[in-house]
Amino acid sequence: MHTLVLIRHGQSVWNLENRFTGWTDVDLSHQGLAEAQEGARLLKEGGFLFDRCHTSYLKRAIRTLWLVLERMDLMWLPVETSWRLNERHYGALQGLNKAETARQYSDEQVFQWRRSFDVPPPPLDPADPRFPGHDPRYAGLAAAELPRCESLKDTIARVMPYWHQVLAPQIRAGQRLLVAAHGNSLRGLVKYLDGMSDAEVSGLNIPTGVPLVYTLDADLRSLGRRYMGDPEAVERAARAVAEQAKA
Amino acid sequence: MHTLVLIRHGQSVWNLENRFTGWTDVDLSHQGLAEAQEGARLLKEGGFLFDRCHTSYLKRAIRTLWLVLERMDLMWLPVETSWRLNERHYGALQGLNKAETARQYSDEQVFQWRRSFDVPPPPLDPADPRFPGHDPRYAGLAAAELPRCESLKDTIARVMPYWHQVLAPQIRAGQRLLVAAHGNSLRGLVKYLDGMSDAEVSGLNIPTGVPLVYTLDADLRSLGRRYMGDPEAVERAARAVAEQAKA
Repeated sequence: MHTLVLIRHGQSVWNLENRFTGWTDVDLSHQGLAEAQEGARLLKEGGFLFDRCHTSYLKRAIRTLWLVLERMDLMWLPVETSWRLNERHYGALQGLNKAETARQYSDEQVFQWRRSFDVPPPPLDPADPRFPGHDPRYAGLAAAELPRCESLKDTIARVMPYWHQVLAPQIRAGQRLLVAAHGNSLRGLVKYLDGMSDAEVSGLNIPTGVPLVYTLDADLRSLGRRYMGDPEAVERAARAVAEQAKA
Repeated sequence: MHTLVLIRHGQSVWNLENRFTGWTDVDLSHQGLAEAQEGARLLKEGGFLFDRCHTSYLKRAIRTLWLVLERMDLMWLPVETSWRLNERHYGALQGLNKAETARQYSDEQVFQWRRSFDVPPPPLDPADPRFPGHDPRYAGLAAAELPRCESLKDTIARVMPYWHQVLAPQIRAGQRLLVAAHGNSLRGLVKYLDGMSDAEVSGLNIPTGVPLVYTLDADLRSLGRRYMGDPEAVERAARAVAEQAKA
């Protein structure tokens, strides 16, 4: 039996400003810092120990991980990072206010961009400074890997190789992993582990800053999962995420 | 040609209290945080980019690295950690005040423990709570690898496998490495890269928080090295380190 812990970063400065973030590298807000601290407290109280950590290339997830490691006195753990754990790329919507975008296009259109499984947002022009090809951290990616925009389906498709090639072999080797990432990259892992349909995962709202603990059998099939902490607070956090797209 | 950057952590809480620290996991002092920030500023101004970071299992080095990564907007770099980069293990002296120890034993004895190449300090009893075998982070080490005390020679002997097996292959593969570590583990790397004698490295004082930049040829032989920043400040910092053992 193996244990795997996932944690979604807390509120970022752009969550607070209600802007589409995607791969924009904005930091946590004060509330986001507090959410990470609370997640850290729960993990520390739970007596968890890890061998290795994984996170994205984006500092709101990395900062969440660092706060957890600091609080748990586990700063000495190795930290692997990958663009494959990044948030969904929001294309030309990145930087736009969600409510304004909803007024401009319609609640329905924005809801579809945010909550459909396979409808991507408008793509970025590669000449756009927001295109990841201009950022040195993505210099190692093949041209075809650099997204101009992503549907949830696209995001999951680039997350899963990281599960199969990196996370799963480490877990099989007995490593206890902590993964700090984003709403949509974590949806990919949850969809796979829980065997969710496309429609189910589109409706899934993972609460922020709440450790999600999986118990896996020797073949890495889920024997069950649970959110740590007060169930009502978890439910409120998930609802708050679902509300963000309304104008 | 390759570039390798080393940085020694700044003042810790126990440096400030003038206590032997070794593997005790104390954090940076306010001055130590400022030293790390200054090192970070120099690296940022120098326009450095790295592919991968290495640090010890001790938070004063890890915190130094994190501050550098934050300031340079490189939090997304992977961080490998190893006990082999830890500070020299100071055995039964860990926790004792350096000046009091000098009064109790003699300046000369303490100077020998601190500055000789191969005289180890008094060893820890394995039953002592300070013995690393009681700390979960060292659970992966073989019994023979757990130090009860170390001379500088012992420290260098356990640092060098990390150079040969981890750092050197990565540098040869074209990775630009940043290594944040400790006075004595870095002495091991410097001794090797600069071809220093035992006596020379015993007299070497690496200043804290000052990036040390090596240029290496294809066979990883040093073509030269330089400390970043104001040479007089570097000299003062090295002298301050040398003064610490006096009663």
